[in-house]
Amino acid sequence: MDIATLRNTHPEHWMRAAAVRMLAVDAVQAANSGHPGMPMGMADVATVLFEKHLKFDASNPDWPDRDRFVLSAGHGSMLLYALLHLTGYEDMTLEQIRNFRQLGSITAGHPEYGHAKGIETTTGPLGQGLATAVGMAMAEEALRARFGRKVQDHYTYVIAGDGCLMEGISHEAIGLAGMQRLGKLIVMWDNNNISIDGEISLSDVTDQRKRFAAAGWQVLSCDGHDPEDIDRALTAAKGSNKPTLIDCKTHIGLGSAYQDSAKAHGSPLGAENIAKLREVYGWSHPAFEVPEDIRGQWREIGARGAEAREAWEARLGALSDQRQAEFARVFAGGTPRRLSATIKALKKQVSDEGPKVATRKSSEMVLEVINPIMPETIGGSADLTGSNNTLTAGLGIFDPSNRKGRYVHFGIREHGMAAAMNGMALHGGLRPYGGTFLAFTDYARGAMRLSALMGAPVTYVMTHDSIGLGEDGPTHQPVEHLAICRATPNTWTFRPCDTVETAEAWELALTSTSTPSVLALSRQGLPTLRREHKTKNLTAQGAYVLAEATAKRRAILIATGSEVEIAMAARETLEAEGIGTRVVSMPSMELFAAQDESYRRKVLPAGPVRVGIEAARREGGWDRWLLGERGREAKQAFVGMDSFGASAPAPALYQHFGITAEVVVARVKELLG
Amino acid sequence: MDIATLRNTHPEHWMRAAAVRMLAVDAVQAANSGHPGMPMGMADVATVLFEKHLKFDASNPDWPDRDRFVLSAGHGSMLLYALLHLTGYEDMTLEQIRNFRQLGSITAGHPEYGHAKGIETTTGPLGQGLATAVGMAMAEEALRARFGRKVQDHYTYVIAGDGCLMEGISHEAIGLAGMQRLGKLIVMWDNNNISIDGEISLSDVTDQRKRFAAAGWQVLSCDGHDPEDIDRALTAAKGSNKPTLIDCKTHIGLGSAYQDSAKAHGSPLGAENIAKLREVYGWSHPAFEVPEDIRGQWREIGARGAEAREAWEARLGALSDQRQAEFARVFAGGTPRRLSATIKALKKQVSDEGPKVATRKSSEMVLEVINPIMPETIGGSADLTGSNNTLTAGLGIFDPSNRKGRYVHFGIREHGMAAAMNGMALHGGLRPYGGTFLAFTDYARGAMRLSALMGAPVTYVMTHDSIGLGEDGPTHQPVEHLAICRATPNTWTFRPCDTVETAEAWELALTSTSTPSVLALSRQGLPTLRREHKTKNLTAQGAYVLAEATAKRRAILIATGSEVEIAMAARETLEAEGIGTRVVSMPSMELFAAQDESYRRKVLPAGPVRVGIEAARREGGWDRWLLGERGREAKQAFVGMDSFGASAPAPALYQHFGITAEVVVARVKELLG
Repeated sequence: MDIATLRNTHPEHWMRAAAVRMLAVDAVQAANSGHPGMPMGMADVATVLFEKHLKFDASNPDWPDRDRFVLSAGHGSMLLYALLHLTGYEDMTLEQIRNFRQLGSITAGHPEYGHAKGIETTTGPLGQGLATAVGMAMAEEALRARFGRKVQDHYTYVIAGDGCLMEGISHEAIGLAGMQRLGKLIVMWDNNNISIDGEISLSDVTDQRKRFAAAGWQVLSCDGHDPEDIDRALTAAKGSNKPTLIDCKTHIGLGSAYQDSAKAHGSPLGAENIAKLREVYGWSHPAFEVPEDIRGQWREIGARGAEAREAWEARLGALSDQRQAEFARVFAGGTPRRLSATIKALKKQVSDEGPKVATRKSSEMVLEVINPIMPETIGGSADLTGSNNTLTAGLGIFDPSNRKGRYVHFGIREHGMAAAMNGMALHGGLRPYGGTFLAFTDYARGAMRLSALMGAPVTYVMTHDSIGLGEDGPTHQPVEHLAICRATPNTWTFRPCDTVETAEAWELALTSTSTPSVLALSRQGLPTLRREHKTKNLTAQGAYVLAEATAKRRAILIATGSEVEIAMAARETLEAEGIGTRVVSMPSMELFAAQDESYRRKVLPAGPVRVGIEAARREGGWDRWLLGERGREAKQAFVGMDSFGASAPAPALYQHFGITAEVVVARVKELLG
Repeated sequence: MDIATLRNTHPEHWMRAAAVRMLAVDAVQAANSGHPGMPMGMADVATVLFEKHLKFDASNPDWPDRDRFVLSAGHGSMLLYALLHLTGYEDMTLEQIRNFRQLGSITAGHPEYGHAKGIETTTGPLGQGLATAVGMAMAEEALRARFGRKVQDHYTYVIAGDGCLMEGISHEAIGLAGMQRLGKLIVMWDNNNISIDGEISLSDVTDQRKRFAAAGWQVLSCDGHDPEDIDRALTAAKGSNKPTLIDCKTHIGLGSAYQDSAKAHGSPLGAENIAKLREVYGWSHPAFEVPEDIRGQWREIGARGAEAREAWEARLGALSDQRQAEFARVFAGGTPRRLSATIKALKKQVSDEGPKVATRKSSEMVLEVINPIMPETIGGSADLTGSNNTLTAGLGIFDPSNRKGRYVHFGIREHGMAAAMNGMALHGGLRPYGGTFLAFTDYARGAMRLSALMGAPVTYVMTHDSIGLGEDGPTHQPVEHLAICRATPNTWTFRPCDTVETAEAWELALTSTSTPSVLALSRQGLPTLRREHKTKNLTAQGAYVLAEATAKRRAILIATGSEVEIAMAARETLEAEGIGTRVVSMPSMELFAAQDESYRRKVLPAGPVRVGIEAARREGGWDRWLLGERGREAKQAFVGMDSFGASAPAPALYQHFGITAEVVVARVKELLG
C-alpha cells in the first residue's frame, strides 16, 4: 500500500498516527540527535495498540492492573513520549517533548524508568525490554493466581526491533516465555529489515517466525501500516495460551527520502526532508503543533480506560480489608512487620548454636524463615538450584500448571533470569531473587546494570564466590567480580562472613526499595563468627569491629566473607605474640562508605598497620580502605588474588595463592618492622 | 539399544569407548569431584569422531591444518583428557589423568587453553566453546581463501550440551554461523535431556532442531550410542554448505545407576556404583588401567593423521619461500617489520598537523595505515560500523560470497563477536579486532574474560567511552566499564587522549602475543596534545609526563583520554596564576603499574597535590595513583563520575557533572589550602 492509499483508506487513523510521527521527527530535529526512523515505522502499530487494545488510563498511570507496554527498541523513545503526551499523561508535557534529549528533561535519549509515568522500564541496551517484559508477564500470572483475576488480569505488550531479536538475551527470554506459556505476553516485531549497518541480510538470515515457533510461541503476521490488519493480529494474539509474536512488516522512516534505509535510523532527517515529509503525510502544521481535533481523539484514547479502572477499583474494594491491605503492601514494596523479628530470632539461634556452614547454606537458612512470612518473594536459579541453595520447602514450582508456585527453574539463562527479575520488581507485587555462580555475573551484567540504573530492588544470590569453590577452576572462580559489582553505582555488594551476617544482608536486601543487592556467598563451610547475639543489624553499617585488640592495638585486619575466618585466626596468633590486633568485618563497602566520617574513623582509626584480606583482586575497592581513610602507604598490605585462579581443592588453592593466616601474620610483622 | 546389544554389536568400538568412559569415571572418583555423566554419554560419539573423522596427528598437535575439536560442554573435560591421553598426546600422561583437578596438573576441572596440547580453547562457561568455534571456522574460511585449500582446509567440530544451547550466546553464535554459511562447522549436540536441575522440560521446551534450521543450519540426527549411525551422520554433515547440527540422542551416565538422571552430571559415582558399572561395561581392569590391545587401537587412531600431515607439509613446502614465510609469520602471530615505521610515520604526521578528531576517528586513521600492511587483520563491528570507525577502505566484506573480505558485519551480537574473535586468534593466522560501544562491554563480558584468561591477543575497539557520547543517555554511558576492564587480570585497557596515543595503543595491541587489549575511544572530537614528535612509544610506559610545570611544581594532574584536554586547560590557568602544574597522561594503568618503582616515582613524585580526572568512577583504579604511590589522603582529589550519567549534549553533561577545567583548578587550590 502506498502512502496515498494508506491516507485515503483510514484518514482518521492516518492523522492520529501522523501526529505521533511528526512529534518524533520534529523532536529529533530540534534535539539534533535521535532516532526518527523507528517511530515513523511503528506509529501505525502503536496507534492501533493504544486506541483499541492497551488497557490503560492516562490519568492513573500507576493502576496496578494496567496493561504493561514496553518499548524494547528503546532508541525509538520518541514513539513512546509522543504517545504518552498525546494520550494525556500529565507529566509528559509539550515542553518536555520540545526538550527531548536535553539536560533535566524527562525525555531522555532512551526511555529511563522513573523519569516519566508510562515508562515501564529502561530500554536502550537491545533485548532488555523484551526480557524484562517476560518477567512482567510472569508477575501477572503469579499475582493473578494469588489475588484472583478480578484484580490482576492484564497483558504485557512489547515492541521489539531486529536488534532486540539478534541479541543473545532474546534467546533466553523467548525460551523462558515459551516454556512458561506466557499467553498474555504479546511481542510486536518491527520487521523493517534494517539495522544500523544496512540491510539485515548483511548479518543475519534467521527466519524469526520459525525461530519463535520453535521456542513454543504463537506466531502471527500483519501489515504494520494497515490499521485493520494490525487490529486483527492483536485480537488474534489474545486467543492463545502461548506467548505471541506478531511479525509487523513495516517501513523504517515511512514516507521520507530515507524510507527503508539505515539512514532513517539514527539521525535527524533535516529541515528539507521534513518539509517534504509534511507534504507526503498531509500534515501542514508547524513543528510540535497538533490540531485540536486530533488532540481530542488522542485524549479520548487516553481516557477510555477510566471506566475499566473504576470497575477494577470497585472489585478491589470488594475484597476483604486484609486482602486489600496485602495487595497494597506488596505493590508498595513494603515488608511485613514480622520480618525484623524473624531475622533477629534466626540471628540469635545461630549465634547460640554456632553452626559451621557455607554462606550459601546460610542464605538458605534465611530463606527458610523468610519465604513463609513474605508471600511476595519469588525465587529461582539459572539451573544451579542445589548449588545456590535457593529453593526452600513448600515454595512450589512456578510453571504453567502451577502459577501459585514461587520457585522458577530459569534454565541456563543468567541474563534472562536477571532481566525477568527486573520485570517482576518493576511490575510490582513481587520481590524476586535468583541465583547463579558469582563468576557468571558476566553473563547477567547487562540486566544487573539495569537493576542498578532503575533502582529495582532485586536480589542476586551469587554463590561460589572465590577460589574457595576449588576444583572447577579459573573459569568458575571470580577474582574481578566483586570489583565489577562494587564499581557499579547503586548496587549493594554483600559478602557476609557467616550466617548472622548473611541474615543481616538478606534483611537489608529485602527492605531495600530502590537498590539491588548482590550476595556473594561461599561454597565452602565457614564457622559462625558472630557468637554474641546483637539485635542491631551490624551489616547495615557496612563494616564494624568484629574482634577488638586485647593487647595494645597495633594492627587492623580488614576482611570480608570467607576471609574473615582467616583474619580471626591471624589475630589469635598475633595477640598471642602480644601484637594487639583488631578485626574489622566489612560485608559491604558501599554501606560503610555511606557512614559518616566519625563512625568510619572509629572503625578505621589512624595508627595501626592495616592488612586487607579478600580472595579477590585488590582492585575491588581495597585501596580506599588501606591507603585512604587515614591509612598510610608504607603501613598497609593486601592479601588476596592478583591473577586468575586455578583448579585444585580449595585448601590447596588458599595455600598456593598465599591467602592464609600465616601470610597475614607475616605481613603484619613486616609492616610493624 | 540396551548396553548388551551395544556391546555385542560393535565389541571393539565398545571397548575403545569404554576405555574413555572408565578413565573419566575413575578420574572423577579419584579427584572426588567432577562430571562423569557427560563423558559417559558422549564417549561413543567422540570415539567415532576421533577414529574416523577428525583430522589430527597426536605427535604434531600444532599442525595448522588440523581439524579443530572444541568441547563446549567443558565440564565433561575428562572426555577430552581421556581422548588426548589414549591417542598419544605426549603431555597428557596417565599421571596427569590421575591428578585430575589437582594443583599443578594440566587436567583442570574445565579445559584450560595452554595447559595441554589438544585443548583448542578454554571452555566451562556454557556456550563459549560453540561461539569460539564459529570464529575458528571463520578463520579457516578466511585462510583458505588467502593461502589456498592445499594448506588450509579443515573442519571445526564441537560437542555442545543443552546448557550451551540454552545460553544466549548460542543464539548469537548460530546466527552468525548460519549467515556466514560455515559449511565446515559441525556441532554435535549431546541431547541427553538433562540439566543440573533435572529434566530439560523443567526449564525449556525449545525444539532445537527447528531452531537451528531457522538459523540457516543443516540439521541431522543420530543415535549417539550407535557407532554406525554416528559415522553416517558425521559423513553426511560434511556434504553441506551450511553449518551442521547433529542431534545426538544420548544417555547421560550411560549404564550407571544414575543413567538419565541429573545425579550423573556433576558428582563422583561412588565406589559401589563404579564396581557395578565395570560389570555392565564388561570392563574388568582396575582404575586407570587400559589393556594394551585397546591402547594400541587408540594409538593407531592418534597416528592415523601422520600421513595426511606429511602430505600437507609437502604441499606447504611447495609454496614459494615468501608464501611459506608469510604463512609461518601469521600463524606465529608475528607482526610485519614495517609496522613500527608505519606507526611512527603516522605519529609524526599527526604531531605536525595536529588535527582535532575523536579518538574513534584516530583509531580509524591508524587502521587505514595498518590494515594494508597487515593482511592478517580481520575487523568488524557489532552493527556499529559507522560509529566505531572500524571499516577501512579496501578491506572488503567477509561473507559467503567473498572469503577474502576482511571485515565482518557481526550483527547485533557483541558476545558472539567477542567469542568469534577469540576463536580466530586461537585458530592462528588472523589478528581480529571488533567494535561496539564501551558500555556494551557488559554484553560481551563472558568472552572478554576468556580472552584474558586464555591470553588471546584480540583487540576490542570500544568507542563512545564516557558521558561524552551525550544524548543517548545513561544506558549508553559507561561509568564503571573502565573499572571492569582494569579489574580483569591480563587485560590492557587503553584510553588514549589523542591520535598519537591511539596509534601507540594500537601498536601495543597489534604486537601483543598473550594479552587482549581494550581501546576506550571518544565519540567527541579531541585536540592533538602530542605535538612534539617522539619516536618512542610513550603509551608503552602506561603513563608519562605530557606537560611539565614551568613554575615550581605544586600540582600534578593525572588524566586519561578525553579528560587530558581538561587537565591541560586547567594547567594553563594554574600556571598563569603561578601554580606550577604537571600533567600526566595515563593511557594505561596496567602498563604503568608494570613499570619499575623508579620510573613511577619520576612520574608521580611525592610532594605536589594530585588531582585525577576521568569521566568515570573513581573505583576504576584511581585510589592507587591518588592515595598510593607517594600520594597523601589530604592532598588529592578526583574529578569524575560518582553516579550514572544523563541524557544531554556532551558539553552540558560535562558542566552538569562538574568535569571541567574550572573545577579542577578549584580542587587544586583547595588542596593547596
